[in-house]
Amino acid sequence: MAAATSFYSSMAPHFQTKLPVKVTGTTLASRLGFSSTANSSRSAKLLAWTRAGAVAGGGGSALGAKMVLAPSIGKPALTLDFETSVFKKEKINLAGHEEYIVRGGRDLFGLLPEAFKGIKQIGVIGWGSQGPAQAQNLRDSLGVAQSDIVVKIGLRKGSSSFEEARAAGFTEENGTLGDIWKTISGSDLVLLLISDAAQADNYEKVFSHMKPNSILGLSHGFLLGHLQSLGLDFPKNVSVIAVCPKGMGPSVRRLYVQGKEINGAGINSSFAVHQDVDGKATNVALGWSVALGSPFTFATTLEQEYKSDIFGERGILLGAVHGIVEALFRRYTENGMDEELAYKNTVECITGIISKTISTKKKGKKEFNAAYSASYYPCMDILYECYEDVASGSEIRSVVLAGRRFYEKEGLPAFPMGNIDQTRMWKVGERVRSTRPEGDLGPLHPFTAGVYIALMMAQIEILRKKGHSYSEIINESVIESVDSLNPFMHARGVSFMVDNCSTTARLGSRKWAPRFDYILTQQALVAVDSGSSINQDLLSNFFSDPVHGAIEVCAQLRPTVDISVPPDADFVRPGCERSLPESWSWLCELCSSAVMVVGGEGSLFQ
Amino acid sequence: MAAATSFYSSMAPHFQTKLPVKVTGTTLASRLGFSSTANSSRSAKLLAWTRAGAVAGGGGSALGAKMVLAPSIGKPALTLDFETSVFKKEKINLAGHEEYIVRGGRDLFGLLPEAFKGIKQIGVIGWGSQGPAQAQNLRDSLGVAQSDIVVKIGLRKGSSSFEEARAAGFTEENGTLGDIWKTISGSDLVLLLISDAAQADNYEKVFSHMKPNSILGLSHGFLLGHLQSLGLDFPKNVSVIAVCPKGMGPSVRRLYVQGKEINGAGINSSFAVHQDVDGKATNVALGWSVALGSPFTFATTLEQEYKSDIFGERGILLGAVHGIVEALFRRYTENGMDEELAYKNTVECITGIISKTISTKKKGKKEFNAAYSASYYPCMDILYECYEDVASGSEIRSVVLAGRRFYEKEGLPAFPMGNIDQTRMWKVGERVRSTRPEGDLGPLHPFTAGVYIALMMAQIEILRKKGHSYSEIINESVIESVDSLNPFMHARGVSFMVDNCSTTARLGSRKWAPRFDYILTQQALVAVDSGSSINQDLLSNFFSDPVHGAIEVCAQLRPTVDISVPPDADFVRPGCERSLPESWSWLCELCSSAVMVVGGEGSLFQ
Repeated sequence: MAAATSFYSSMAPHFQTKLPVKVTGTTLASRLGFSSTANSSRSAKLLAWTRAGAVAGGGGSALGAKMVLAPSIGKPALTLDFETSVFKKEKINLAGHEEYIVRGGRDLFGLLPEAFKGIKQIGVIGWGSQGPAQAQNLRDSLGVAQSDIVVKIGLRKGSSSFEEARAAGFTEENGTLGDIWKTISGSDLVLLLISDAAQADNYEKVFSHMKPNSILGLSHGFLLGHLQSLGLDFPKNVSVIAVCPKGMGPSVRRLYVQGKEINGAGINSSFAVHQDVDGKATNVALGWSVALGSPFTFATTLEQEYKSDIFGERGILLGAVHGIVEALFRRYTENGMDEELAYKNTVECITGIISKTISTKKKGKKEFNAAYSASYYPCMDILYECYEDVASGSEIRSVVLAGRRFYEKEGLPAFPMGNIDQTRMWKVGERVRSTRPEGDLGPLHPFTAGVYIALMMAQIEILRKKGHSYSEIINESVIESVDSLNPFMHARGVSFMVDNCSTTARLGSRKWAPRFDYILTQQALVAVDSGSSINQDLLSNFFSDPVHGAIEVCAQLRPTVDISVPPDADFVRPGCERSLPESWSWLCELCSSAVMVVGGEGSLFQ
Repeated sequence: MAAATSFYSSMAPHFQTKLPVKVTGTTLASRLGFSSTANSSRSAKLLAWTRAGAVAGGGGSALGAKMVLAPSIGKPALTLDFETSVFKKEKINLAGHEEYIVRGGRDLFGLLPEAFKGIKQIGVIGWGSQGPAQAQNLRDSLGVAQSDIVVKIGLRKGSSSFEEARAAGFTEENGTLGDIWKTISGSDLVLLLISDAAQADNYEKVFSHMKPNSILGLSHGFLLGHLQSLGLDFPKNVSVIAVCPKGMGPSVRRLYVQGKEINGAGINSSFAVHQDVDGKATNVALGWSVALGSPFTFATTLEQEYKSDIFGERGILLGAVHGIVEALFRRYTENGMDEELAYKNTVECITGIISKTISTKKKGKKEFNAAYSASYYPCMDILYECYEDVASGSEIRSVVLAGRRFYEKEGLPAFPMGNIDQTRMWKVGERVRSTRPEGDLGPLHPFTAGVYIALMMAQIEILRKKGHSYSEIINESVIESVDSLNPFMHARGVSFMVDNCSTTARLGSRKWAPRFDYILTQQALVAVDSGSSINQDLLSNFFSDPVHGAIEVCAQLRPTVDISVPPDADFVRPGCERSLPESWSWLCELCSSAVMVVGGEGSLFQ
């Protein structure tokens, strides 16, 4: 450990705009690290850098009652326009900002041959989560269009997935199943659907096998992040596009199948065109998305995609939820609550209800407000750090390094990830779920709801200030959470999701969950217990945040579909959703009319 | 969140040596993520890469009773030899390896003019922790040598530190105090002792003010790490050296003053020569270290220094200690232990005693063994990740980014670090310390001792396998811990240290403490509670580890001095040690004769 104090005192004027300050005050606010000093001239200068052009009120700190950001009312930085000669581009208005989308539907499958003009073979590489779903949807959609484009699965020699692919109708005999490298070199569009770690370790070989002027298709921007962290980019002689469904592979497939009866059912996707060697890339990407069954497709960049995706799973999608429930379960049990009730009031509440049950106690509203007010900035603190670690490449490098520690090296043993599900809390969860009545969505605990919704709003604010589009923010952070992951975690427990999701998400949850736990425990819960005043500005900002209206618009673009999955599904891969329309309707209710939920008559906490 | 499962199944043979595996077994060992499968051919291949040449027994995993690393008996990778025409280089034998050092002493001050030949002015930049100590020691030592080299403090205009520097005898009038930039441009040797963050944000201006062929002196390798993460290096027209005292500034000064009576008192230092434009750098660096009063000086590189330093403070020096005590305090109180006793059995035990008190209960030995056996690999898992994040530059980038979030930017509020000291545990600690008898070193709790010592041994093993010299390992991780930081934390609490140490350490402790907490809770404590068998090989490796002998050698090179600091010292900066010779003697006892401590008659747990 180096010098155990800071040297700022000797450098203050020259360095002061960039250096940390030591908080020495003795009030609670300063002990919490929040000072009320605002330097308006510096503030103005710093705000001039703001790409989003949003107005931030108040001074230099967090949590203090006087300091609060006004909700963003400016434009997100990026309005990603695009041109397509095949599909119909629509302009939608989200929170006052225009964004461009393409609506999907089975009636558009007839346009696929035109969108895919020049493509004779689509190689789908990998058979994990997205691979089976995307390959089957593409094949079926092209079949409807009576196209003769071949969808071929590429697997490494001897892979046990050959059998699964054959069961899904892909065979060597009819040329739709084969060796990974031959499939890559024989395809005009290569969908690289292997894991992040496999992409990072094998991209050179993949690139070297691709035909000149062919198209590399990704469903995640991770590989770009990895290449950037090495100072590299994609080879210049291929197009690079992405279509990123905002849900797991099994739901992409299942909703597509259900969509044969319910038009519009499906998982929304973002799309990106990173390189376009011949001007065809946008049509191909949109065709790919429409063929997958995306109800609507919005534009992003590969960079925005990996930032919001990797960040999101470390935040409200998984990591932060884990951290929150650990902190609150500990709090409730230490305060004397029965441990099964504490489990219900944390995990079951977040993953299940936070919804229709109406508390009629004034007490509930007060608890919600206290929790929201105290948790918003501490959550934002960690989310902000996480976002910048992702954006700087550190988090991606860390994931790649972790993958290499799964095996022995340098005389050190292998460190594969262990499971987390054997601690007290998750044992309690097993008991709770085993006796839970069918359809039970858990109690609505107002304090838990306050912390969770503060987290959600803080995450939205970070993404907004970092210039992400509302489409991306809402699909990536909100819809995926309440429509896909929370219902699954309600069925199986948060620990099961942490232990069975993708390696990138799993590593991230392990890393960030304890950070949320600690900051909530050290700051938010301490503030609540010491009776800190409630930040009313924060609460009124929540009520008036334009994101609520934007979520409503997004909701209308996609019908609520009751995803049917066998209740005994035991793994994420074969299928992980269960029926939970209530969760979605809760969100719509919450966000389209926040006052209804928190403040209005007959609503959540009146 | 991207695809929620992994794609390895389709890629296995080709990618298998680099890809993570999914553990699906149902035994405890596999649930913990540890598999017993050893692939001896891959193992052999991987071991061939081992720079340390150490022998690792067993297969691809951790914690399983059969898998254990033999203690390293090979050479650390680096034998850092050097040539000095002024001082006497000595060869010492640490754990069977030869390392080169220079012994210090006041009798060598007469050599300083020769070592510093050509230097007319030494500029000491910054007045924080190391600045005042090094400036005063240098001035006093040069005075003894009747040298006319000027030691001049450089501060930014208007700094409040001018007054403190004047009080220490540095004045504008006699040319020993002045403006930072003029001091840099007028010095032949510039000791840059400002904080890591200030170095990262201002290095260009510093470099541009240095005279060609002058010497840049650092006391930490952080700046090299930052430059590397930007793809940069130091300017080629200056020499770059480092002397890194293995203790805080106040102890560097205090022991120097005491050393006027007790020859050999002082803080050991490492030194590095990163660039040498004129062949004088080694003599200057060694002269600097001798003038500071270092009892012995060992060689390192700037890179090895920042890796071991930043890693170390995130591990056993601070971050891991915080995480361990949080996890164990929670365990003990949840199991019904009174909270004050639980505090004593965690914090007080680690920072205080783990020492002379002898438990005569067999039970104690069993608890120690269970804790050690279950904690070693989980601790190593996080330490390994931390080391690689530091070495890859991610951790340094993360520190720099965090410093920029201390102020408003991009429309987001400022997030200075909050304090952690208001949670239950640290409130209990206040009560415990307030009623603690003078000299009380807390109880010796065998389970706590087992976890702590497992952490220490895992940290030693990581540094050893990563090629650090024994001098560096022992000084950086062990001596600094038990001789400097633990005693301070015993006096003030771990939370006080976390809230008041350097920004780099503070950020690191916040980030890594919860990781240690979670992994111990999720893996080690679960293993203990489920009655997992004790890994006897791990314990016997502990007994036979050659580091014990090496620590004894290091201990003999430096006399134990009772550092006297006023007990009411309220901050790290004015002085943070208190008298605690027992702690050091505990360490000597523990490590020079591990069997004595854990297994021998009349020893710790017999």
